[in-house]
Amino acid sequence: MDKIRLGIIGMGNMGSGHLRSILNGECPRITVTAFADTNPEKLANAGKLAPDAAAFDDAIKMLDSGLIDAALIAVPHYDHPKLAMECFKRGIHVMTEKPAGVYTRQVREMNDAAKASNVKFGIMFNQRTNPIYARAREIVKSGQLGELKRMVWIVTNWYRTQAYYDSGSWRATWNGEGGGVLLNQAPHNLDLWQWIFGMPKRIRAFCTVGKYHNIGVEDDVTIYGEYDNGATAVFISTTGEAPGSNRLEISGTKGKLVLEDGRMKWWRLKEDERYTCFNNPNGFVWPECDYEEYTAQEPDGHPEILNDFAASILDGTPMLSPGEDGLNSLSISNAAYISSWTDDWADIPVDEEVFEKNLAKLCADEKITKKTVMVNETAESLSERWKVRW
Amino acid sequence: MDKIRLGIIGMGNMGSGHLRSILNGECPRITVTAFADTNPEKLANAGKLAPDAAAFDDAIKMLDSGLIDAALIAVPHYDHPKLAMECFKRGIHVMTEKPAGVYTRQVREMNDAAKASNVKFGIMFNQRTNPIYARAREIVKSGQLGELKRMVWIVTNWYRTQAYYDSGSWRATWNGEGGGVLLNQAPHNLDLWQWIFGMPKRIRAFCTVGKYHNIGVEDDVTIYGEYDNGATAVFISTTGEAPGSNRLEISGTKGKLVLEDGRMKWWRLKEDERYTCFNNPNGFVWPECDYEEYTAQEPDGHPEILNDFAASILDGTPMLSPGEDGLNSLSISNAAYISSWTDDWADIPVDEEVFEKNLAKLCADEKITKKTVMVNETAESLSERWKVRW
Repeated sequence: MDKIRLGIIGMGNMGSGHLRSILNGECPRITVTAFADTNPEKLANAGKLAPDAAAFDDAIKMLDSGLIDAALIAVPHYDHPKLAMECFKRGIHVMTEKPAGVYTRQVREMNDAAKASNVKFGIMFNQRTNPIYARAREIVKSGQLGELKRMVWIVTNWYRTQAYYDSGSWRATWNGEGGGVLLNQAPHNLDLWQWIFGMPKRIRAFCTVGKYHNIGVEDDVTIYGEYDNGATAVFISTTGEAPGSNRLEISGTKGKLVLEDGRMKWWRLKEDERYTCFNNPNGFVWPECDYEEYTAQEPDGHPEILNDFAASILDGTPMLSPGEDGLNSLSISNAAYISSWTDDWADIPVDEEVFEKNLAKLCADEKITKKTVMVNETAESLSERWKVRW
Repeated sequence: MDKIRLGIIGMGNMGSGHLRSILNGECPRITVTAFADTNPEKLANAGKLAPDAAAFDDAIKMLDSGLIDAALIAVPHYDHPKLAMECFKRGIHVMTEKPAGVYTRQVREMNDAAKASNVKFGIMFNQRTNPIYARAREIVKSGQLGELKRMVWIVTNWYRTQAYYDSGSWRATWNGEGGGVLLNQAPHNLDLWQWIFGMPKRIRAFCTVGKYHNIGVEDDVTIYGEYDNGATAVFISTTGEAPGSNRLEISGTKGKLVLEDGRMKWWRLKEDERYTCFNNPNGFVWPECDYEEYTAQEPDGHPEILNDFAASILDGTPMLSPGEDGLNSLSISNAAYISSWTDDWADIPVDEEVFEKNLAKLCADEKITKKTVMVNETAESLSERWKVRW
């Protein structure tokens, strides 16, 4: 096999965006041989783009067709795990859009099924391809920042208008998406949080529903997290602020990183702060640092992730964004919801029963009154959408 | 009267620092005619600096001496209100060091006494003299930022070593100072928070005791605050991080301010974001902004505040830092303690009974085991100490 035969499930904005970039030649080791959607209009549109690929009105038929080696799942969040498991059963490799799912039980089951299978499983955390985040992770994981103390991430530049939310009746609903900014926009950042800084043990979060938009899910969140070693994390996100910020600060006993404006600033202490604290005879000390900056061009993350996925299938290389990792960011957002719903701490791993009971109630009580206004999206706005914005 | 006759109460680091700067001619409308301290050594040291001023081993005797028009209170926090009220009784103007006191009941009583008196009452929030903060306040108060949405202040550059805490047995104790970083270092920032952004209605805070030092009070805090209009505030401070940060971000419906590195960045939206949100037909919008930057030299805040105090006495000008304002920052820190102690929300105005009960227990249970190691402080380190650090 020198090329992956890919089938795309879901020909909405994301699915057709991926299709376009593959057709553009951005993923030389992938051919789209089939696609599936239950919506005839979307199916027809995709057929115009890729007349040589087989069109299916049912994903399962596509999985059983023998036409594909791998599937890209770009359907609503709730269905990611179910479809992934249908693929695993059939020995079909899986790349799923984020989030991994809506609740962790479902995602744990998916991860177990992936493990028991013999296929590759990836998730579309395309911001991991940004060299600045990768470098930050490398510095943290190699211990060059010492023992971690604090992370503060202000990522408030996911601005969306009411027109965005009105563009699909499923958007920003409990039944359709399973949440708001935490499930749709912030998963990228929640994933980078855990990828770089690790998983907190408990969360206290403040999620505000419909603060800036006429929606029934949260569009503003502040999360406080605590770690086993005493480190803390603050994570702030919203779709209601302009011009927002994207500034990630990480500090440890050996220095500090600040990622902002497409640049990573790195202060490296000449002496571990813990040593200075207990050995310097002066009360007021401004410990000496080396300083360096790092910038890098951001690659177009989506094809990068697909290429990495193809390489892992074809060459057996380790994956940049393994599907199992989706459980981590989802655990953070699930815990944030639990904390906000119960107005109390939420532990990680999350209490799945509490989460599901509350979510079920929100879904049952939900009245979707939004009118749907179609908003035409260009290929540019799509590629723009999930890029790292500074 | 063309010059204020000032008496300084407490000739420790702060009191003698103020004395030095007045003797250096930095406060042309103030003469130090007397000072008081119960410690003979400190009294003798001050006498060497200011041989023409009268030395008192008891503050009350100085207040009754007829030698002073105004008093500068630079004693441990608990005694600020008591001494201020002794001054008010005698018609003596008061400038107190921050914080206003340790608990709000005491400070409310002090404020009532000030109001009933006929004298001027100021508090040493010297960072208010920084033109960058003053400008930020003016922009916010004039409505140029629109309706406020969010404040995030990371002010983690109050670094202190263990030697600092060991330099006085009263330091960083419940009995001696009434708290840690919230009562000693952060009051400046808590004051600027409320001065620029206003008072929150409730607080959820996470204070960690002795996280980075061998002390029995908090040296690390994260505060989350909520406002009547739904705005939120996050405030992060510590004495255990190096190199720390000092970055204040404020956003409103008409733009954003970021104060960092001695510079204020101002993004002014061309159109109110609330209008854009509900009227722009596109889902993904990056609203247009005008951008400007503002920098200014920081004056030496302590003499500025004293000069402003003198002018208010001599010329009747309004004071930059009125003493009554001390209640606000203290209310935030008191609420932060209550929230942390009860692991729950704390309203503002604070529940004074809950605060005092908890504080009394902490004081009663406190075992001060720290050895005291004298650390010599130079005049430079003192002037450096309370400057705005970026």
